[in-house]
Order: sequence, then structure tokens, then C-alpha cells
Amino acid sequence: MTDAALADRLKATLRGLPGPVALVTTVDPVGAAPQGMLASAVIPVSMDPPSMLVAINRSASMHPTLAAAGRFCINVLGTSQADVLALFSKAELRAQRFESDQWRYDAGLPWLPAACSSIFCRTASSSHFGTHELFIGEVTEVVRGSGDIADPMGWINGSPARLGPIG
Amino acid sequence: MTDAALADRLKATLRGLPGPVALVTTVDPVGAAPQGMLASAVIPVSMDPPSMLVAINRSASMHPTLAAAGRFCINVLGTSQADVLALFSKAELRAQRFESDQWRYDAGLPWLPAACSSIFCRTASSSHFGTHELFIGEVTEVVRGSGDIADPMGWINGSPARLGPIG
Repeated sequence: MTDAALADRLKATLRGLPGPVALVTTVDPVGAAPQGMLASAVIPVSMDPPSMLVAINRSASMHPTLAAAGRFCINVLGTSQADVLALFSKAELRAQRFESDQWRYDAGLPWLPAACSSIFCRTASSSHFGTHELFIGEVTEVVRGSGDIADPMGWINGSPARLGPIG
Repeated sequence: MTDAALADRLKATLRGLPGPVALVTTVDPVGAAPQGMLASAVIPVSMDPPSMLVAINRSASMHPTLAAAGRFCINVLGTSQADVLALFSKAELRAQRFESDQWRYDAGLPWLPAACSSIFCRTASSSHFGTHELFIGEVTEVVRGSGDIADPMGWINGSPARLGPIG
């Protein structure tokens, strides 16, 4: 099988891989402009030191800013945050993303008090693999938001989801 | 806040981070013994080349075998695979893990045809961070199993879960 055919098969399969809906935010260290993007490739790495990993496509518009900023925030969205999901899913809403008063700023870095949690990171290590850059962040602060930590938004088959009991 | 206090807060928060239930398997390159462990820290990296990342605690019993084997398989469990979840969750069932006839073997590497999917990888890169080793595998094959790809097992708040519409 060619790499392209294998990639197509992998992509189709990964639609069925459960993940979170995280809004990863950062801030331009020069212009102080906030930026953010939705990500599902977000995992813990180690608890010693406390650390998280996010995989970001190097062609994503946020990538150069994230690489330059050296810090980012992982906001874990809850099931009631369809408004935030829409803002960051639809290109035509790009200009409105940081307009609302739902944002707070920590030295310019935007975060969402209405999320389930906001995990603040300082980039400790990064590496390229293929099209992506893997950013490992040492966690500097964890804020529990007003969203229900037990009812986060999941992502499956290209859509937001709620996680509930199987039985 | 100390690192330990921050780690406690992060751990509590991460109970609310949705993830898959993946059974990562490998095979001892010398003794040919199969091994496996449950993992939620499993993400795609790049589609060019097709690749996946798994984060494994270096104190996990499977770690040295995985590091030596240079290949592994990510089996994405479905909601009906409580039996497999139990086998790999309970230490007292350790001896029975590979006893059943539900396994197939690819050059000694065990995989589960009843999973939603089995993603075969050859380790392309690995790196340590804190307590963990990050294994990036180039995907060599993807098999759709008999499990419903649209109904994978999720993991939230320390329990298996089903992902459904938010409604």
C-alpha cells in the first residue's frame, strides 16, 4: 500500500478515536495578539514534572506564534460550549474569536473561565515529525473553570459528543 | 505551588479529559512473549508519514519490551469489550491475558480482530520526558476490526464510557 492510501485508511479509522475538544491558546510575543485553535491531539506526558503534549500541524495559522511564544494554555471545553466550538470552527467567525467578554488574560495569554479546566504551560521541549510539531509544556498552573469537570465535550466521528455510561 | 501539589491538581483535572481506551501490544524480540497494556495517551501525529504517538510510563512493566521490540500495535477498543478491559486492568488476571483465542498474531505481535481498529506501527523515534517515554510509530498497516468503528470505548472520570450526541 502507498503512504497516501495508508494515510487515507488511517484518517478514516481515526474518526473513531475518542478525544477531547481542547482550545489551545497562545499570544504573539511581539504584537500581543491572542490566538487559539481547536485540538484533539492533547495528552498528559508526565506528572514529574507535570507536563502536557500538544501536536500541531506546522501549516496551522497559529503554529509560528505558538513556536515563538513559548507558552500556551489548554482549555478543556465542556458540553455546553457549542458557542466557542463554532467560533473556532468557522473561518468566517475568525475576526470575532476574541471579541467577547468571556476571555480572561494572563500576561496577554487568553484563557476561558467557562471551560472545564485551563492548563497553563511553558514550552519545555519541541520536535518535528512529518507535518507536525510536538510541543511539550511544563505545567505552570491549573485552573478549574466553571464548566462541569465531569461533563467535558468529547470528539468522535467529526462531531462533538457527550461521554456517558456504557451500560 | 510545589510541583507535587501542581501534579495533584493536574491529575484531578485530567480525570475529566476524554480519551480512548487503547490496548497497546508488543512482542518480546527474544522470547517472543506477547505483552500489552491499556493506554489513553494515544494520538495521531502526522499523515505524511502516517504516524501515531503513545506515551508510556518508563516504570510500566511493558516498557523495556516495547523499547526493545521497535514495533507495536494500537488496538482501539469498542464499548462491548469490557472483557478485554478487565483482563488488562486487573493484576490477578495477568496470566490469562493472552490465553483466549480472540488474539491473532502478526510475526508474534498480538492484535485483536474484535477491536474497532488495529493500527500497526514501527517505532520511528522515541524520547524521554520526565517519567515517560514517547514512542512515535510510523504506521505500517491499519486493520478495521469487527468492533463498531462509530462506537468506541471512551475513558472519563476513571471509567469506560460511550460517546453519544450532546442532544
